[in-house]
Amino acid sequence: MYDYKAAFQTAVDQVKGEGRYRVFADLKRVRGQFPKAVRRREDGSEQDVVIWCSNDYLGMGQHPVVLDAMKAELDTAGAGAGGTRNISGTTRSAVDLEAELASWHQKDAALLFTSGYVANEATLTTLQRILPGLIIFSDSLNHASMIAGIRNGGCERHVFLHNDLTHLEQLLAAAPADAPKLIAFESVYSMDGDIADLAGTIALAKKYNALTYLDEVHAVGLYGATGAGVAERDGVLDGIDIVECTLGKAIGVMGGYIAADAVIVDAVRSWASGFIFTTSLPPALTAGALASVRHLKTHPELRVAHQERAQALKDRFAAAGIPVMPSESHIVPVFVGDPVHTKMISDMLLEDFGVYVQPINYPTVPKGTERLRFTPSPNHTDDMMDALVEAMDRLWSHCNVARMPSAA
Amino acid sequence: MYDYKAAFQTAVDQVKGEGRYRVFADLKRVRGQFPKAVRRREDGSEQDVVIWCSNDYLGMGQHPVVLDAMKAELDTAGAGAGGTRNISGTTRSAVDLEAELASWHQKDAALLFTSGYVANEATLTTLQRILPGLIIFSDSLNHASMIAGIRNGGCERHVFLHNDLTHLEQLLAAAPADAPKLIAFESVYSMDGDIADLAGTIALAKKYNALTYLDEVHAVGLYGATGAGVAERDGVLDGIDIVECTLGKAIGVMGGYIAADAVIVDAVRSWASGFIFTTSLPPALTAGALASVRHLKTHPELRVAHQERAQALKDRFAAAGIPVMPSESHIVPVFVGDPVHTKMISDMLLEDFGVYVQPINYPTVPKGTERLRFTPSPNHTDDMMDALVEAMDRLWSHCNVARMPSAA
Repeated sequence: MYDYKAAFQTAVDQVKGEGRYRVFADLKRVRGQFPKAVRRREDGSEQDVVIWCSNDYLGMGQHPVVLDAMKAELDTAGAGAGGTRNISGTTRSAVDLEAELASWHQKDAALLFTSGYVANEATLTTLQRILPGLIIFSDSLNHASMIAGIRNGGCERHVFLHNDLTHLEQLLAAAPADAPKLIAFESVYSMDGDIADLAGTIALAKKYNALTYLDEVHAVGLYGATGAGVAERDGVLDGIDIVECTLGKAIGVMGGYIAADAVIVDAVRSWASGFIFTTSLPPALTAGALASVRHLKTHPELRVAHQERAQALKDRFAAAGIPVMPSESHIVPVFVGDPVHTKMISDMLLEDFGVYVQPINYPTVPKGTERLRFTPSPNHTDDMMDALVEAMDRLWSHCNVARMPSAA
Repeated sequence: MYDYKAAFQTAVDQVKGEGRYRVFADLKRVRGQFPKAVRRREDGSEQDVVIWCSNDYLGMGQHPVVLDAMKAELDTAGAGAGGTRNISGTTRSAVDLEAELASWHQKDAALLFTSGYVANEATLTTLQRILPGLIIFSDSLNHASMIAGIRNGGCERHVFLHNDLTHLEQLLAAAPADAPKLIAFESVYSMDGDIADLAGTIALAKKYNALTYLDEVHAVGLYGATGAGVAERDGVLDGIDIVECTLGKAIGVMGGYIAADAVIVDAVRSWASGFIFTTSLPPALTAGALASVRHLKTHPELRVAHQERAQALKDRFAAAGIPVMPSESHIVPVFVGDPVHTKMISDMLLEDFGVYVQPINYPTVPKGTERLRFTPSPNHTDDMMDALVEAMDRLWSHCNVARMPSAA
């Protein structure tokens, strides 16, 4: 007789055996003091920590303009939306937010999803139903949600080497000229901090008549004059057919969306199971996101401060011989190269120094490239950086981890 | 050269041709006055309406205990969670909510997802990876999210006739005795309002050593002494291996979850892509849901009032000869049997009477069974019911729709 309990235990044991069993840090963010938070240990005791790995990149999740809009909407419209978009769940702030997002990305229309994950999964699956025979060309480091959407549709797919346009062109050239094609990629890759060549990818798409599908979840709010992302920064908004973003990182709330031509959005809206059959975002979330986007559009100084903080941390790490990895973006990865060391350093940073940063191990990154990943925000002060670098310096010595040759 | 625009237009035209192109009603709920709302027409003009098709079944989305908890959490912790559960996104109210939900369903553990859709899709896909060779037996009327999860995993699956335990047993008996098996079904089916035979299904599961996976999204908060669902009402909580619910209907907020044995939850937590790689629910949502669940557990009078309102509406419709369909639950479906009539009646109810109820057409229900679906809440007054029944009576005459033979 089949032993279910043993099978579930085996699945858990396998994850433990691979060193990737996750223990979640139980945190209470303290409004107005971000990135400070209070951690609750398993024994119930508490500890003050500084969060160094949040994707609330600009601290908008704590901004009064967002919180006030959310509270006002709770007072006006209540908590949940009460239904799917079609069955009583289309609230006014969702409609207004979609219009604002479309305009931000200079597209006809936008469509909200419950998350960026769902936006990617639902859209990429649905495009395969709408465009029979579609061939998808996918960057090898694309996010799990894009991979899920591409796989679940079951279409022909080709994975090109990360950010390698030569390889992408080989694959495009080998495909039938008259088949529908889509290039799926990200602008900022969140584990390495590198940025794709948007203009080069768009040129290939035009040459081979392919659609471009760009994930800007780690860029929206952060790049471009109004924060619309790397496509805005690079002046190529026109060349992106479908842009996918999140409301849960720089925008500071929750949810995801796509923006595109009206007919593309209408087709996805009409066909995507993951959009149709799910309860809408609560009005307070859409109202909060709307306030956040409007604020971000007109406050470029937040983006300047964000880049300055990232560069400052990179420079301090480098000066201390901490092996900060090359990154063109606001992501500050530090190389360790061993899963046990990475976890140990992360645990000691937390317990001994109140520095909270998650270890990034396989399968999120390739084996042998295990790292710590820091995401400084405009709210991370010089004092916090001093404390962090000193802690890292002591642990690097204590754990005898390799330093960069350029340092003492 | 492939014409993308034409392909997207064809996809939209197909939906229009099948009479299932959706135009969303743009609504502003008015807190404290639920089910009243303000509808915004395409020309910008406004209209007061009464919502008759919300899944905020008990009006908890407007309840002060929920709104106060959400506002307090916004003040304490801010807006978004800022990361995945593993990377800085485990907030205290999420941990506390999971413990509360587990206890409610008398299980070891619970796990939050961004929605009920994601809970179903992610869990059912992941169970197929955890239990290689799994065979899933799925009720023919299961929700789209369960179908998506079952399909995306690619396992062997058998669809049994809706609520037909004889057919289910035939399928179970025909499968290899030593293969892992799972029966996936719902308690309350939301389009017909019928309720599954939980005890009978559990008996079959035990006989054939199958797991039971029960979707209680349209029952949680509404049935059982503390509102834990039909499994509680029927005294069979023990016989359900995995229960899946939503925080977006009777609980009045947003999100989804499963509850089960600790090792099952830990395995799903460790393997489910749709759980691991997505931003957590905002603290205000988990705090609001926690307050709502605690309130629902100790307020059975809400459930009594809810059932009374549903029965009152059924009785009034029947007395007026409006063909209310047999329903064992709080769902009040009214048979029309023609998609054009259904849409027309729905449009006239909205424009002429301020009654908002969505037409339910194919593919949500089989062709020839098109209907209107009413969900009265404790907040729907006798006066509202009088106005509704009078409007329906006039339209039934105006549109010459069939009445029930029992009426005049």
